[in-house]
This record gives sequence, structure tokens and C-alpha cells, in this order.
Amino acid sequence: MKYELTHGGDWAGFTLAHGRPPLDFSANISPLGVPPGVQEALREAAGQVDLYPDPLCRELRNALSEHEGVPVERILCGNGAADLIFRAALARRPCRALVTEPTFAEYETALQTVGCAVEYAMLQAENGFALDKGFLDAITPETDMVFLCEPNNPTGVTTAPALLTQILERCRETGALLVLDECFGDFLDAPEAHTRKADLAAFQNLLLLKAFTKLYAMAGVRLGYALCADTELLERMRRVGQPWAVSSLAQAAGAAALRETDYVRQVREMTAAERPWLLRQLTGLGLRVIPGEANYLLFQSPRSLTEPLARQGILLRNCGNYVGLDETWYRIAVRTRTDNQRLIQALEEVLR
Amino acid sequence: MKYELTHGGDWAGFTLAHGRPPLDFSANISPLGVPPGVQEALREAAGQVDLYPDPLCRELRNALSEHEGVPVERILCGNGAADLIFRAALARRPCRALVTEPTFAEYETALQTVGCAVEYAMLQAENGFALDKGFLDAITPETDMVFLCEPNNPTGVTTAPALLTQILERCRETGALLVLDECFGDFLDAPEAHTRKADLAAFQNLLLLKAFTKLYAMAGVRLGYALCADTELLERMRRVGQPWAVSSLAQAAGAAALRETDYVRQVREMTAAERPWLLRQLTGLGLRVIPGEANYLLFQSPRSLTEPLARQGILLRNCGNYVGLDETWYRIAVRTRTDNQRLIQALEEVLR
Repeated sequence: MKYELTHGGDWAGFTLAHGRPPLDFSANISPLGVPPGVQEALREAAGQVDLYPDPLCRELRNALSEHEGVPVERILCGNGAADLIFRAALARRPCRALVTEPTFAEYETALQTVGCAVEYAMLQAENGFALDKGFLDAITPETDMVFLCEPNNPTGVTTAPALLTQILERCRETGALLVLDECFGDFLDAPEAHTRKADLAAFQNLLLLKAFTKLYAMAGVRLGYALCADTELLERMRRVGQPWAVSSLAQAAGAAALRETDYVRQVREMTAAERPWLLRQLTGLGLRVIPGEANYLLFQSPRSLTEPLARQGILLRNCGNYVGLDETWYRIAVRTRTDNQRLIQALEEVLR
Repeated sequence: MKYELTHGGDWAGFTLAHGRPPLDFSANISPLGVPPGVQEALREAAGQVDLYPDPLCRELRNALSEHEGVPVERILCGNGAADLIFRAALARRPCRALVTEPTFAEYETALQTVGCAVEYAMLQAENGFALDKGFLDAITPETDMVFLCEPNNPTGVTTAPALLTQILERCRETGALLVLDECFGDFLDAPEAHTRKADLAAFQNLLLLKAFTKLYAMAGVRLGYALCADTELLERMRRVGQPWAVSSLAQAAGAAALRETDYVRQVREMTAAERPWLLRQLTGLGLRVIPGEANYLLFQSPRSLTEPLARQGILLRNCGNYVGLDETWYRIAVRTRTDNQRLIQALEEVLR
């Protein structure tokens, strides 16, 4: 059996290969560590894991309802947002779906699971990987489902609000379910201006995805959630998988995370300060950098970086396996200044 | 949205309804609490959940390989055994499948997810819910997949080893995948005599399921695994769902659990002593009890028990939603003597 990995964040593989854990720029996660309150909640929950998790995540969904300002019946929790991507595909069973490329690979993998024909809307490097009006024409009455990542992973690029509204309307008109992945939305400079939460009521065909993974540095816990006004769809999504997908540890950690307002402020301030710094440094090295708006940056390098940086203990995300990118593209997380400086220094040595 | 629960273990719902947590006989879990080593592993892991889980569960699978005596490439870990049931259905995409009834409801739910036609092999109370040779005839060349739970949930009944071998052979002959759920196998008096691990090499069509949930009181953690010699099938199962299904907390807890040999001995000794005691007591109350061999017992009551026992803080599993059973059947876990006495006393009051 050959296990092939499709994503960044394989610190375990790096550690095995290089004899030490990496400085990991390959996973787009808050570099400030697990919030203290989350750690405490996990330690407290450790003694009660003999109980089955609440399959309805009642307490966590109540907390999320208050946090997001969304009625509790419009919330479904999952074993990470990735779990909900597969559940959405299984619940909707699309014959034909549309995804932009490059983007997060699990949309297509999930669609293939139900034998769906996947059409690519190719984003162009020349346009800075931005979505344009042509996308509206790609949504036809035959399109059952559309996946859109806002900001997009791995580019960090967002879609113009007016165009996003047109996409929503076009999907409603043609009967397509729009899965809007806002997992990195909280890293934007103005998350509230960009989120489509307020459109849920008017657009029953809108399914929003969010996760605790990145903002709260909880990738190892597995916790995400879907917001949707079509509660029948949410109920089908719940039924196409096991009832206990969300561990009790994740439920406790999630409720605690929502109280970590100071932590979130710090992460957001740091990202807002470091992203432009990193962008300038990378540009200064002569690299082609996409001016992303999230907690990661996509750039193109004239030289292969994976091996030379690995020798310095640094793990990058090579984008060779993204549709629409190739081995010359890399994605890096925005980390702390110290980490970012170490990366820039290592890149300087390789590139000069 | 109406959330309907299909299973026992809904302590959260009980607590909401009755204002206190239940003495829970509805979930078939070790009553000795979370093993200390597992709690410690969870508390230690809490600080590192900012890292993505190892998608290949390398360390845990190595530990399982040693523990089970099964090569590491024949092991796939999942977010509880329930996750693996759904993945098996998605990877195999059966058109026609066979399940015994009554049994664990998730087999059928998972099969429905892929639009599979499900045939029931009905077990009869008159035969003590034992499987007989007629089952062999139910496996036809049209049968793509067979689910068998050994010991069966909720009856606790096992299949005669000779018949089980014939079933394996029949499935191999007709090309059916046999999913043998041994999640409660470790509670049998002689687990090693009953497990079909040794048949993996000869039967590529055998998929064994095991879980940490019950023996190690880790239901809230979510961790199970599949054993199979058909490594292509395991790889497909890995690909039909998200890559990070098993949290890093679960991976750490699982590795620690395998070192809890004292705990396991205690649980097994307690179950072996308490099961016959509970069986005698229930029979003494005039109830019809199925002499199960696992850590739970199925019985029939002439009177409704759910409400009267709930008023005493006790939660039972009513079996009204099992195919082949009705509201008169209840399943109870084998717990500690103190707990079991409290249950018997409460039953006496209701039934006298």
C-alpha cells in the first residue's frame, strides 16, 4: 500500500525523514500555539472521555449560535471542516459540480466520492488568481454544486463582494448549492465585511463552512462547522455519516476557544502586521508573490526550495499537486517575526 | 430540523431532561473510567494540538501492529469504528448487501448512503438470536457485502466458529466482502479463540473492525481501526474521506491505551464476574434474558421501564428502533457490582 499525502502539515513525515521536527511553514495555522483556555478545557475533558460525545453537540452549537449570531438549528458541527465537505457532497449527490482551480483539493476528492463530474474554472496567475465575471457563465442549469474558497487556499485571494453576490444569485437561479468555505475568513483585515453569514436567510442554497483549525491553532483536535438556512440539508448531512463524528474533546475545546477573544486579537494583529512584511521581503528576494489577504502567501521560485530548506529544518508547502499550479509554486504560512526572519534568511541563502 | 437519535449513550439529552447526569446503562462501555495512562496522554497532547494530526497515524499503527500481530500495512485507523463502516461502504460501493437483524444500526445507514439494497437475515428470539446455516444460502453471487457483528450488538450472541468459517468461505467463493465487527470481541471469555485475525491472509475479502471505545472507555475520543489483507481496499477507504479523520489526541490516547494491560485485565475480570450475576438477577425478576457473552445483556420486559428508571436517574437502551426487536426489549451494559445492584433494585421496584 502506497500512502500518498496531498497536503501540507506533514510534520510527522518530516521528522522521520530529517530526524527533527520542522519549523512548519506548510500548514496555515496560527503560530501562537494552542490557546491556554483550550488546553485547559482539553485537560479537564480528558477524565470524561468514557462518555460518548453528544451527537447533537448541543452545548457547543448553543455557544456557536451566540458567537456567530446564527440560529442554532442552522449550525452543524463536524470532525473538522473537511468532514463537512464530504458530508455536503454525500448529502447533495451532485452529478455536475464546479470548482475554481487552484484551490483546496478536498472539494474535488469529496465530489469524486459520489461519482460527480467536476468542471474546473481555471484562475490565472496573470490576473493574480482573481475570479472574474466569466465564472457566472460557467454556472449553468446543469451545475448542481459550486465550491468557492474565500479567501482562496492557496492564493489568499478574495472575490469582489459584488461578484460574490452575483454568484450567489446565479446559483439560486439555477438551483446550485454554493459551498462557501470561509475557513480562512477570520484572517482577513475585515472579516465581518467579507463573510456571507447575513445572506443565509435569503439564500437557502448557501452553505458556509468554518473551522477552529487555523484561528485557534486546533488542527489536531478536528472541529469545524457548517452554517445553512436549509435545515433539511443539514439534517441529511448529519445522516450520511456516523453520529459521533465530533469528539467530546473537540466539543469542550470549541466552547472554550470561543471565549479566547484576547488570543484571537493577538493572532489577527500579528497576521496583519507580518503578512505585508513577509510580502515585501519575498518580493525583495526577486520572487513573484501573490498578494494574498489571509495568513499565508503563494509565491513562485526560480529554484527548487524543498530540499535546501528542509536541510535547514524548514518545511514548505510545494504546490506541484494543485491543479493549475506546478512545482515552481510554494505556499508559506504567516508566522511570528522570528520565524519569518529565519525563513527569509534561509531563502536568501538558497536564492543568492 | 428534528434531530433524531438512534443510539444509546445520550447522557447529554438525559441530563437536559432530568436535571442530572444518568447512571448510564445504555452505552456498552467499560465502567472503570478512563485509564490513567490515557488521561495522561490526552493531557500531554493538549499542548500540541496546533499541529495537524499525522494523516497516516504512523506511530499508532506501528503500536497496533505489534499489539495485534498484524503487519502495519494491513491496518487503517478511523474516527471510531463507525467512521470505518461508512468508509467501507463508500470504498466498496455495494449494490446489494446482507445484514443480520437485530444488529448495530450504522451498517444499514452506511449502506443506504451509497444507495445499496439491503437484505435482512432475521435472527429469531426463539433461537436465542443465533445465526444458523440458513445464512449461508442468503449469501448469493449477487451479494456484494455482508456485515456481521461478533459478538452481536445488542444480543451479545456469537456465531459458532465452524459456521463462521463457512461464512468466510462462502463470501470468498461468491466475491462478497465480509465486514466482521469485533468491537466487542475483547469482552468475550476467550477473545483470542474467537477473533478472525488469523484468517486475514487467507481471506482477502475479510475486513475486521475493532475499536478503543468500549474496552478502554474512550467513547468520547473516537478511535477505531480496520484490519484487512486487501491493502488496496484500505487505501480506497482512506481516500473516500478526509485525510485527518483521526485527531492527534486520539492517536496519542490510542498508543497509551495499548500499554494499559492491568486496566484491561480488571475490566475483563469484572465483566466475566458481573455478567452471570446480572443474568441471574434479571432472570430471577422473571425477565426473559438472552445469555449474551459480551459486556451487555438483552432482555424483554412485560412493563415499560424507560420512564420509571429515568426517574431514578438510570438510563437504559430501549430497543424499539432495532429492526427485529420492539419496545419490549432493553439492552443494558454490565457495570460494577454497586451499579448493577442499583439497577436490579430499581427494576425490582418497577416490576413487583
